[in-house]
Amino acid sequence: MVIVMKPNTEREKVEKIKNKMLSLGCEVHESKGTNRVLLGLVGDTRRINPGQIEANENVEQLIRVMNPFKLASRDFHPEDTVVKVNGTKIGNGSMVVIAGPCAVESEEQLMEIAVNVKANGANMIRGGAFKPRTSPYSFQGLGEEGLKLLRKAKEITGLSIVTEVMDQENLDMVAEYADVLQIGARNMQNYALLKQAGMSSKPIMLKRGLSATIEEWLMSAEYILSKGNPNVILCERGIRTFEKYTRNTLDLSAVPVVKELSHLPVVIDPSHGTGKWNLVEPMAKAAVAAGADGLMVEVHNQPEEAVSDGGQSLKYDNFKSMMNTVQKIYAVR
Amino acid sequence: MVIVMKPNTEREKVEKIKNKMLSLGCEVHESKGTNRVLLGLVGDTRRINPGQIEANENVEQLIRVMNPFKLASRDFHPEDTVVKVNGTKIGNGSMVVIAGPCAVESEEQLMEIAVNVKANGANMIRGGAFKPRTSPYSFQGLGEEGLKLLRKAKEITGLSIVTEVMDQENLDMVAEYADVLQIGARNMQNYALLKQAGMSSKPIMLKRGLSATIEEWLMSAEYILSKGNPNVILCERGIRTFEKYTRNTLDLSAVPVVKELSHLPVVIDPSHGTGKWNLVEPMAKAAVAAGADGLMVEVHNQPEEAVSDGGQSLKYDNFKSMMNTVQKIYAVR
Amino acid sequence: MVIVMKPNTEREKVEKIKNKMLSLGCEVHESKGTNRVLLGLVGDTRRINPGQIEANENVEQLIRVMNPFKLASRDFHPEDTVVKVNGTKIGNGSMVVIAGPCAVESEEQLMEIAVNVKANGANMIRGGAFKPRTSPYSFQGLGEEGLKLLRKAKEITGLSIVTEVMDQENLDMVAEYADVLQIGARNMQNYALLKQAGMSSKPIMLKRGLSATIEEWLMSAEYILSKGNPNVILCERGIRTFEKYTRNTLDLSAVPVVKELSHLPVVIDPSHGTGKWNLVEPMAKAAVAAGADGLMVEVHNQPEEAVSDGGQSLKYDNFKSMMNTVQKIYAVR
Amino acid sequence: MVIVMKPNTEREKVEKIKNKMLSLGCEVHESKGTNRVLLGLVGDTRRINPGQIEANENVEQLIRVMNPFKLASRDFHPEDTVVKVNGTKIGNGSMVVIAGPCAVESEEQLMEIAVNVKANGANMIRGGAFKPRTSPYSFQGLGEEGLKLLRKAKEITGLSIVTEVMDQENLDMVAEYADVLQIGARNMQNYALLKQAGMSSKPIMLKRGLSATIEEWLMSAEYILSKGNPNVILCERGIRTFEKYTRNTLDLSAVPVVKELSHLPVVIDPSHGTGKWNLVEPMAKAAVAAGADGLMVEVHNQPEEAVSDGGQSLKYDNFKSMMNTVQKIYAVR
Repeated sequence: MVIVMKPNTEREKVEKIKNKMLSLGCEVHESKGTNRVLLGLVGDTRRINPGQIEANENVEQLIRVMNPFKLASRDFHPEDTVVKVNGTKIGNGSMVVIAGPCAVESEEQLMEIAVNVKANGANMIRGGAFKPRTSPYSFQGLGEEGLKLLRKAKEITGLSIVTEVMDQENLDMVAEYADVLQIGARNMQNYALLKQAGMSSKPIMLKRGLSATIEEWLMSAEYILSKGNPNVILCERGIRTFEKYTRNTLDLSAVPVVKELSHLPVVIDPSHGTGKWNLVEPMAKAAVAAGADGLMVEVHNQPEEAVSDGGQSLKYDNFKSMMNTVQKIYAVR
Repeated sequence: MVIVMKPNTEREKVEKIKNKMLSLGCEVHESKGTNRVLLGLVGDTRRINPGQIEANENVEQLIRVMNPFKLASRDFHPEDTVVKVNGTKIGNGSMVVIAGPCAVESEEQLMEIAVNVKANGANMIRGGAFKPRTSPYSFQGLGEEGLKLLRKAKEITGLSIVTEVMDQENLDMVAEYADVLQIGARNMQNYALLKQAGMSSKPIMLKRGLSATIEEWLMSAEYILSKGNPNVILCERGIRTFEKYTRNTLDLSAVPVVKELSHLPVVIDPSHGTGKWNLVEPMAKAAVAAGADGLMVEVHNQPEEAVSDGGQSLKYDNFKSMMNTVQKIYAVR
Repeated sequence: MVIVMKPNTEREKVEKIKNKMLSLGCEVHESKGTNRVLLGLVGDTRRINPGQIEANENVEQLIRVMNPFKLASRDFHPEDTVVKVNGTKIGNGSMVVIAGPCAVESEEQLMEIAVNVKANGANMIRGGAFKPRTSPYSFQGLGEEGLKLLRKAKEITGLSIVTEVMDQENLDMVAEYADVLQIGARNMQNYALLKQAGMSSKPIMLKRGLSATIEEWLMSAEYILSKGNPNVILCERGIRTFEKYTRNTLDLSAVPVVKELSHLPVVIDPSHGTGKWNLVEPMAKAAVAAGADGLMVEVHNQPEEAVSDGGQSLKYDNFKSMMNTVQKIYAVR
Repeated sequence: MVIVMKPNTEREKVEKIKNKMLSLGCEVHESKGTNRVLLGLVGDTRRINPGQIEANENVEQLIRVMNPFKLASRDFHPEDTVVKVNGTKIGNGSMVVIAGPCAVESEEQLMEIAVNVKANGANMIRGGAFKPRTSPYSFQGLGEEGLKLLRKAKEITGLSIVTEVMDQENLDMVAEYADVLQIGARNMQNYALLKQAGMSSKPIMLKRGLSATIEEWLMSAEYILSKGNPNVILCERGIRTFEKYTRNTLDLSAVPVVKELSHLPVVIDPSHGTGKWNLVEPMAKAAVAAGADGLMVEVHNQPEEAVSDGGQSLKYDNFKSMMNTVQKIYAVR
């Protein structure tokens, strides 16, 4: 950390803050400029509370130098984390495709979609049994009934299950059925849920919050890792910007940035990332080209009858076409 | 709703979608332009699922006309909601001040602050016993011990208690101590928590999410209202923008906008809204001038020793000065 | 500046960059942490090119400590700048109101409005003769004819003229008529125009760009100041965010922030800042409470017939009401 | 357009606005809902001024249905525009690479870089002779001297020249040397410059503004097209968001969106789009995979000595590597 003192702060007050930092166990290196004094803090800065320094009226600015995450950081864990889900590995350089409907609606719907996405090369099935909906009047999911249908789809196709857990209460129940527990964008900073996910034995797919910086996203992963669960998969699904044509702005630069800062695998969700089915294929190709470890895509047998997110769901032929082109990109990326 | 068909869509396909809408119970009014057909839907549009329409490949755009909230809407509830908290009324044209530390730290700290803010005119005390922290390594709050201290502060000062509930598990426990349950910005779309808050008998202070539109904020209020709890207080605390000098951008236009769209009271938190103690007083004055029903402000006896948010906490003399000036503004607004 | 070297950079490479910095005339203070070396640069850092340091593959991060503006900075000019426009002073603690139509449309329109806003207490008249329009098919302004009408309005009412200059070509011509030259939000980084404005003898009202940080805004002021024109008035008019209900998000915290960082006066434009006439009065009150040096407000005799921005223009009675309430706020702020 | 009247507006006032719309030459289709009346306007709506409708106090909302651009729209120009620059075609399905330094610095620098990027497959050279810099104290470019060096580089390598024009004054001079005139992000809404560019015989590369929606970007293209210059190349270079790790957020979904809405070619600038040289290659690959018509990339012989943007410039070996991988992606996209 670097503390920038206000111009012309009295010596006595500079000394006071230096002594406080020393007492907390840091080394302090002072640099005197023409108007301002800088204090470089090194050593063990974990006991420093930034707010306390910012509250000092002689301090102009406090600058953090280190990333605040540790377990999620590549600095402390140089080799890539590879998450194993039954036979599938995520983060080992291959490309994993998770596909399925936004919501589990019925047995017919789910089985049909599962068989189709399997035939076209998907590795896992997605489908929500508990749905976070902006409106309390929208369909909220089939609940455990939906989980049972996912299990049946798995029995038929062999596809592992990725499904969302929305609250602490149901985490254990969802974990009985799911192979990967998804924590949605709106819950990225639901710390109670993150802590509980950290105590689960199931891998966690952590979606980036709508307005979360990459640093905050990795800090949320840190919550899970710090509770003992090393199997975190990050999922970028678009961030909120001023652009109105797309539902969100898919931040594909998150792929190489996460790869640089962290050892965790990262997958891309171009369905939520764009909100429009016709943008899914080009963005899926771009994601693979950028180095993503996988894709998460919404596919529906009848988008025009889907209970949610019909507008961003691929039909079977579009999914087939997408798989075709992303595999070609993957082969040469 | 208005459906805009793609240019030159065949008549048969227009008829198909019209018939579907009719079958769902709407009236359909067609307008033919040079290239495009518009379908105006009126009547009971609640059974329409927007995603299904957007999934139709002949549809260019679906435009919603009505606000999606009902119980939170002034259309359906023209008179202002006044929330009563012990003797204090919020939303009746008066100005309520909620003050206290970011986190409850100790008995000495809390009692001292409580006595001071009471003496300077605060109506309620704030203080977190459960703290949502970006880092798992930061202080997470005293838990129930903190709630007991809040109760003690209330006994001494008579100030009602506003404190945050972070998860479903602890809601009942927090409600035993608190007069108002705060749902924080990061939990604004934690729907499980919202539903449970809707079943509580305590008033709920619902903070706006960092990147929530006003419409989404009112939809989260709708979750609470629709479960039977009519006592929702909205709290604007800054939104996330590109500007880096302030921690967030305080959106004061939310005050008149909420007053226009909804009947619910709205208070402003200039501490989180700016992140800098020296900006709190000017923004508090501006909030009152804009018509806010109240203020929520962080005050600390020793910001330089605060366990969290020291940089945005007012000292006693700053709080006194703020109370002074906001009261003058209030008197003439 | 502080250079953060990558973890475990070889000593030789640290020395190389230290020597380069020394050769540019800075002092270099080194702090060694467990993994990283920090280099604090003090003294004359103006000859350092940040991009060159960032290009060094051993550098993790370059942190600027000082604000990049000088002439616009309160550090180097502690007393407030007061801009004099004929009899009116902006920045001396009084509150200046600039009112008038979005665009000059006709003699009848402008004279009527001018007389009305004068009667209700405005200090200056606004009105565009050259209009920046998103669409090439929209009304682009009356040009010099509009400027002549503004001069006539000044002759009748005594109100000084604030009007926009959109390009270098017309700056001298506009300056013949105007008392204050406005540079619009879209031109905030039109550096050729800024330089020319810096050579004008007329005060410049510099609007903040839609997505400009406060630092960038002050850097644009620096362009004008550095060419010798000390009379810059800053105007906040809303920034672009994700919120859709308002046209822009009015960032009122810019008022106290600008007052802290700079000595230049700052006025608020609640008309563009909100885009809705019914939000203008509450936001004008809030702006005055926050300490603004003035307001810039659109007023029209017949908003329903206005050639531009009718939706955000006040009618006479609304303007009268606004003047009334802002004066009360001003009296006690 | 659709006009939404406020709930329970009196019949007489609805009739008044209907009559006004009829008098402007539109057809009006009325739909009566339970509370609100909708007026669908079809036919020739060009004479309608939206602000005038919004100014009507009985109007709740005005909803535009059609895109506001015409000449830039694929609706009115279904086939792709192919821009020819000497032998190179942009927009015909091939992939064009424009490479070179941020700024022209010296003869040695430019010739060396030109020869290198040519050898590695670039089709055109970029390099600024006039530089838009945030600070008035930064290097502002070599001016005409820089243009002469670009001409020399072209003579040596045969590469066509893309260079920025910052103001009207120099447009003709820049056009004497350049093959493509670049209009920078900060000037995207400098309408005087756009109009002049529309009268030039040279193709225009129009960069997207930092906070411009895709619609506004196409409206700026419309300014150029409407003045008679059909050769507009769009260039996405990152938008401003809350994310701080990258300089901007590269919006790659702009590629398929522009392809859908418009017939104009679109190229991607991953150098400005990320601000970090190590993110350029992955984002260049993603851009090609998404369907971009070309790339614009900063390359420097010695980024650590570059006068500007060193941190985002590729070295020769990185550029070579990038060309290699993007060509592989291009072959299969």
